[in-house]
Amino acid sequence: MRGFKFNGYKEGKYGVAIIYSEVPAVTSAVFTKNRVKAYPVILCQNLLKKKDRFRAIVVNSGNANCYTNNGMEDAIKMQEIVSSLLNINKDDVLVASTGVIGRKMPMDIIEDRIKKAYSKLKEGNSLEDTAKAIMTTDTFPKFIEKKVGEVKIIGIAKGAGMIHPNMATMLAFILTDVAIEKKDLDKLLKECVDKTFNRISVDGDTSTNDSVFVMANGLSDVKYKDIKEKFDRAFLEVLNHLAKMIVKDGEGATKVMEVIVKGAKSKEDGTKACKAVINSLLVKTALFGGDPNWGRILAAVGYSGADFNPEVVDIALESNGKSVYLVKDGKVLADEGSEELKKAEEIMKNDEVKIIIDLKIGEFEDKAYGCDLSYEYVRINSEYTT
Amino acid sequence: MRGFKFNGYKEGKYGVAIIYSEVPAVTSAVFTKNRVKAYPVILCQNLLKKKDRFRAIVVNSGNANCYTNNGMEDAIKMQEIVSSLLNINKDDVLVASTGVIGRKMPMDIIEDRIKKAYSKLKEGNSLEDTAKAIMTTDTFPKFIEKKVGEVKIIGIAKGAGMIHPNMATMLAFILTDVAIEKKDLDKLLKECVDKTFNRISVDGDTSTNDSVFVMANGLSDVKYKDIKEKFDRAFLEVLNHLAKMIVKDGEGATKVMEVIVKGAKSKEDGTKACKAVINSLLVKTALFGGDPNWGRILAAVGYSGADFNPEVVDIALESNGKSVYLVKDGKVLADEGSEELKKAEEIMKNDEVKIIIDLKIGEFEDKAYGCDLSYEYVRINSEYTT
Repeated sequence: MRGFKFNGYKEGKYGVAIIYSEVPAVTSAVFTKNRVKAYPVILCQNLLKKKDRFRAIVVNSGNANCYTNNGMEDAIKMQEIVSSLLNINKDDVLVASTGVIGRKMPMDIIEDRIKKAYSKLKEGNSLEDTAKAIMTTDTFPKFIEKKVGEVKIIGIAKGAGMIHPNMATMLAFILTDVAIEKKDLDKLLKECVDKTFNRISVDGDTSTNDSVFVMANGLSDVKYKDIKEKFDRAFLEVLNHLAKMIVKDGEGATKVMEVIVKGAKSKEDGTKACKAVINSLLVKTALFGGDPNWGRILAAVGYSGADFNPEVVDIALESNGKSVYLVKDGKVLADEGSEELKKAEEIMKNDEVKIIIDLKIGEFEDKAYGCDLSYEYVRINSEYTT
Repeated sequence: MRGFKFNGYKEGKYGVAIIYSEVPAVTSAVFTKNRVKAYPVILCQNLLKKKDRFRAIVVNSGNANCYTNNGMEDAIKMQEIVSSLLNINKDDVLVASTGVIGRKMPMDIIEDRIKKAYSKLKEGNSLEDTAKAIMTTDTFPKFIEKKVGEVKIIGIAKGAGMIHPNMATMLAFILTDVAIEKKDLDKLLKECVDKTFNRISVDGDTSTNDSVFVMANGLSDVKYKDIKEKFDRAFLEVLNHLAKMIVKDGEGATKVMEVIVKGAKSKEDGTKACKAVINSLLVKTALFGGDPNWGRILAAVGYSGADFNPEVVDIALESNGKSVYLVKDGKVLADEGSEELKKAEEIMKNDEVKIIIDLKIGEFEDKAYGCDLSYEYVRINSEYTT
């Protein structure tokens, strides 16, 4: 990627990744809506109000730097260490953190990791090591590269638990060499985050640290306006890919569901219904158990607040090219002993299942991604910290 | 209890309880707000619009009679069987069901259970057998008796999974011999349900069948108006006791939390904050693991929508007469290695833990009850049905 350097180093619980742009890059970001915000989030929000272009992002894993004494000082200290190594201005450096809340940052360790990440950065780029350095309970690194003609887009993310609309303990970094204006980048990022990271959920909790950053350094000399349509599509695909990988790697997740709600009265109703289904613990455990329990799906839509008449809806399952109606025109087809139930049970054995709900009351559609709830989720989250 | 008969019979998955009043009893009820309502709920809502007094309630476990073909016919059939056995009018009989959604009612079995429950009813009253007959994944029967001078109040409930504000797959039946007018009973029930059953959660799902019924037959000859204050208090205690038992018996629950939010800007803010904490999977798994993870508590309050400033709040734990501040005036006391953290870990070992959050931004307070999320919850709900 023209003009970007990135690498990372992790040892034990703590890792650091550094992203560096050789020229000031137009930068946009969206952050958690939680009222409790980690210090790096507050710091970046303030920096982004002041200026549009940045040179670097430093990210640590292992500690969220949230709700600690002297947390702002520690975030600024990270800026200082990185800016001095890279020989740039302190305020050209953005900061992100992920990990345990409410523990003081172990700044000695973080400084050590920053230096080691910097050494690796000098040797060359590694998408994989950058992604690995920011993992917490993630089980695999998440990254993607895409080309739009001469232009490149790179995406790196971490996720795992606490993923929820809106975007919880997830970090994502998008780098591109397209030449784009700040207002266009802001708009594109907001739209695409809303369609991707804000449509996924692992456990319904919204974290204090979620951030999505995008840096565009313009070094391809290709103007965004000239490739807008293709670029927008590729950008959305990058975010969508990262979002799906985050769900797939949801803490303890063994299966992924894509919930599509059609025929909703409004966009909001479609969203509410999707989100209620992906967040329902009963649907999530049914998915884990491979049980095509459409009753739980219907009940979740029922309490979602979306307007509909249960007596006309369709509910279908789809996976690997096979599909089956559980409910059609409000009539239960997947009753005990039915062929439909057998087929549905087969479909539910797959790793990725589409649940399609047609409310038949309007023209709107929305979708969301979720995962199952397993023993492993409970193990991870009852054993994490202390 | 003067003038009430009640008993139940359960065999295998299916049970039936019958409650009978010798005279027409003033009856109030509140029902699920889910848009998908089970047929008995629809039937009872219609009956209660037409008249104030009823003679009997028949309740079955094992099948929710929700979203099935011919579900309304089956609910009416239950009315018919019971009214003919008791020699009363069909429309004097209310119906409730709990169990699997979307399976046709096995009416042969239900009829058999109704007849056996009726035989037991003729022999005498049993609170315990009534409560046992309506259990699904409950591990113990839930009932309570209370006296207010000459007046008695009896409460019977079933709960277990899917308990959520507002009131999910829970059924409760309150019987009293006080003489009370319909409008007073409606008001009292609504107020007390809001303070009790609407303040508990097991998994955040709201069911299609939740119902709370109260029958008052007036046979004590004591007028409600004459003992209002005492009666109100006792009535609230009965509902509160049942609500707490339901949480305690939440599917797979090993521990109960009482979350108290003080100093909220409005009643609604207090409610939002309590409910976010009891429903947070991360708080629930931390409770299961005995981890005083106040960061997760704070994050849940943060995304609850309640107004507050994280930099001034207190968070405390309390159990068995011991208490400790995790956070005081926005400062973390339970940092790694601290005495507070040790004390907090001790407190978290108890079966019942109070979490007290003072937002210090207003005068309002609310509380809610929740339980932990265990391996057993996942097992029960991934193996249930099919």
